[in-house]
Amino acid sequence: MKAVLLAAAIALVLSLLGTPLFMKFLVRRRYGQFIRDDGPTSHHTKRGTPTMGGAVIMGSALLAYSAAHLFTLTPLTVSGVLVLFLMAGLGLVGFLDDYLKISRQRSLGLRSREKLAGQTLVAVIFAVLALQFPNERFRTPAVSFVSFVRDTNVNFAFAGTLLGLLLFVLWANLIVAGTSNGVNLTDGLDGLATGASVMVFGAYVLIAIWQSNQSCQFNPGLKCYEVRDPRDLAVVAAALMGACFGFLWWNASPAQIFMGDTGSLALGGAMAGLAITTRTEFLVVILGGLFVIITLSVIIQVGFFKMTGKRVFRMAPLQHHFELAGWNEVTIVIRFWIVAGLFAALGIGVFYAEWVVGAA
Amino acid sequence: MKAVLLAAAIALVLSLLGTPLFMKFLVRRRYGQFIRDDGPTSHHTKRGTPTMGGAVIMGSALLAYSAAHLFTLTPLTVSGVLVLFLMAGLGLVGFLDDYLKISRQRSLGLRSREKLAGQTLVAVIFAVLALQFPNERFRTPAVSFVSFVRDTNVNFAFAGTLLGLLLFVLWANLIVAGTSNGVNLTDGLDGLATGASVMVFGAYVLIAIWQSNQSCQFNPGLKCYEVRDPRDLAVVAAALMGACFGFLWWNASPAQIFMGDTGSLALGGAMAGLAITTRTEFLVVILGGLFVIITLSVIIQVGFFKMTGKRVFRMAPLQHHFELAGWNEVTIVIRFWIVAGLFAALGIGVFYAEWVVGAA
Repeated sequence: MKAVLLAAAIALVLSLLGTPLFMKFLVRRRYGQFIRDDGPTSHHTKRGTPTMGGAVIMGSALLAYSAAHLFTLTPLTVSGVLVLFLMAGLGLVGFLDDYLKISRQRSLGLRSREKLAGQTLVAVIFAVLALQFPNERFRTPAVSFVSFVRDTNVNFAFAGTLLGLLLFVLWANLIVAGTSNGVNLTDGLDGLATGASVMVFGAYVLIAIWQSNQSCQFNPGLKCYEVRDPRDLAVVAAALMGACFGFLWWNASPAQIFMGDTGSLALGGAMAGLAITTRTEFLVVILGGLFVIITLSVIIQVGFFKMTGKRVFRMAPLQHHFELAGWNEVTIVIRFWIVAGLFAALGIGVFYAEWVVGAA
Repeated sequence: MKAVLLAAAIALVLSLLGTPLFMKFLVRRRYGQFIRDDGPTSHHTKRGTPTMGGAVIMGSALLAYSAAHLFTLTPLTVSGVLVLFLMAGLGLVGFLDDYLKISRQRSLGLRSREKLAGQTLVAVIFAVLALQFPNERFRTPAVSFVSFVRDTNVNFAFAGTLLGLLLFVLWANLIVAGTSNGVNLTDGLDGLATGASVMVFGAYVLIAIWQSNQSCQFNPGLKCYEVRDPRDLAVVAAALMGACFGFLWWNASPAQIFMGDTGSLALGGAMAGLAITTRTEFLVVILGGLFVIITLSVIIQVGFFKMTGKRVFRMAPLQHHFELAGWNEVTIVIRFWIVAGLFAALGIGVFYAEWVVGAA
């Protein structure tokens, strides 16, 4: 528990103090955001705002996780390190994308094929490794079962080891693609994605602590949780929450820095990693409901346009629809945060209710 | 648990849908906010915005609490009803104040003597009643012990029954005065007090659920909690959280309605009631740390000015200092929310850490 509080506090302080330093560095090097031509025209005023702020979030989370372990003299765990690897790997892909956009001074970075290849590579390594490293109770960071609030009976390994592995890797890739695109699409209004991410990571702090308290290893019972390193996953989630919270200070309207693809891919990767390792792969759809809705708005918009040639929204992703409908940017952000908070609370409620029903 | 989710959901829907109806009603009757002449001059543009939105928050919370009990066929509890009485009583005082301000079209409502008398009356009734109604285990909604994360050894009843009662009533009044003034002073920027209140009530949902799970009645143990009706206090906190969340939708920048003294006194009263009944009288100082800081800024400003004739802040309460320092209103609100969120998280952390240390 001390490590959880420490990780959150250290990450918060690091990103709170680190972000302005990073901003100075970027401004001195004239690394400003190039605004997409396909966004609302009002956004053109945002040109020149430093981006790649996700690097501070990642750095703060990694340092805080390490420091929390150093101060409490507890060993790192495989689950924790793997989630942070997934975060950092995807963040690196996002960073390359951001960096190319800036250095070429055009809105296009990596080709989508290159980006997809990078994301896939990282996710495959994560998925394969997550099935290794059994502890003394033969628990691995991830298992090939599909999970909702805990593992279900659906097992990808039904068809034999190699095909099962392949199916699990595909599944993990799907989750990573879902969360990282979700955060990526949600980015674009000051503080929106950062604030919504704080809520998801905050929910994971609670969920992982609960899983640790009700862990089958130390507290066997009817409804105990088979997660390899729940306490350490709470530390990871706390570090991420703290880092996002500190970054939000500077990213809040009017944003002085953006997280960029560096941030959105890293945060999406971390969410996917937490979902897979805490066995909450479908619960994350509720916890991150705002990201899901925004992703759906794009799918609906594109799909409907292709089918009928008509648009459902004035613009997709959804937040831009409301901008064009005349809502203030800040109003949209706060209202979307309310929605995000409700989804996070609902997710925690569903998770807890399942435990109560079975344990009563 | 079902009642907790139900109360939150019903309160949310009621305030989300009820607030625009209430706004229409107010606008039709030309009940707009009269802006104080001693606030920043930029606030004069806010003149005419409907106020007394706290009435919707109160109504939604009361209805949601009742409905949750009706749907789950569970009886009301003394603790729950008393907290809601304290909320409604203080809200009524605030309402009279708001109403007089509007109907007289001047910024002064009740005289401060009248206001204090009303608040005191309500708080005294609450305090006296809260020491009655023992359940079968002789637990009353409140006790005369001073509490932090649970009751301490400090007991106001040390000096005999009547003096002890008097001291407890004074203590309860002090807590009520602290929280209601805290929320009242924090009000003034769009969404600020509402958002911070959501966090405090959210924290109390978690705390009361935890107290219910670790209640001495059903789960006796080294570190169990002696709270009379923890589960129902979670329902109350959830109803308040939902009501504030729904109201925030309309109260967020640019605010279409203010909560007024109706709201700030009601919410402060509810916080005081929850602190007293859940035995967290000093913990609420951490949970509502933002309110404390803002109150302190006023005390420091006034005290220092009286002593030296100089001002510490450009203007008090603190949020106006930053306005005059050139921060955007929205930036202040979001950054203050971050601070409020950190305090709420810290409070939950302290509460939980105390349990872990003793229970391990």
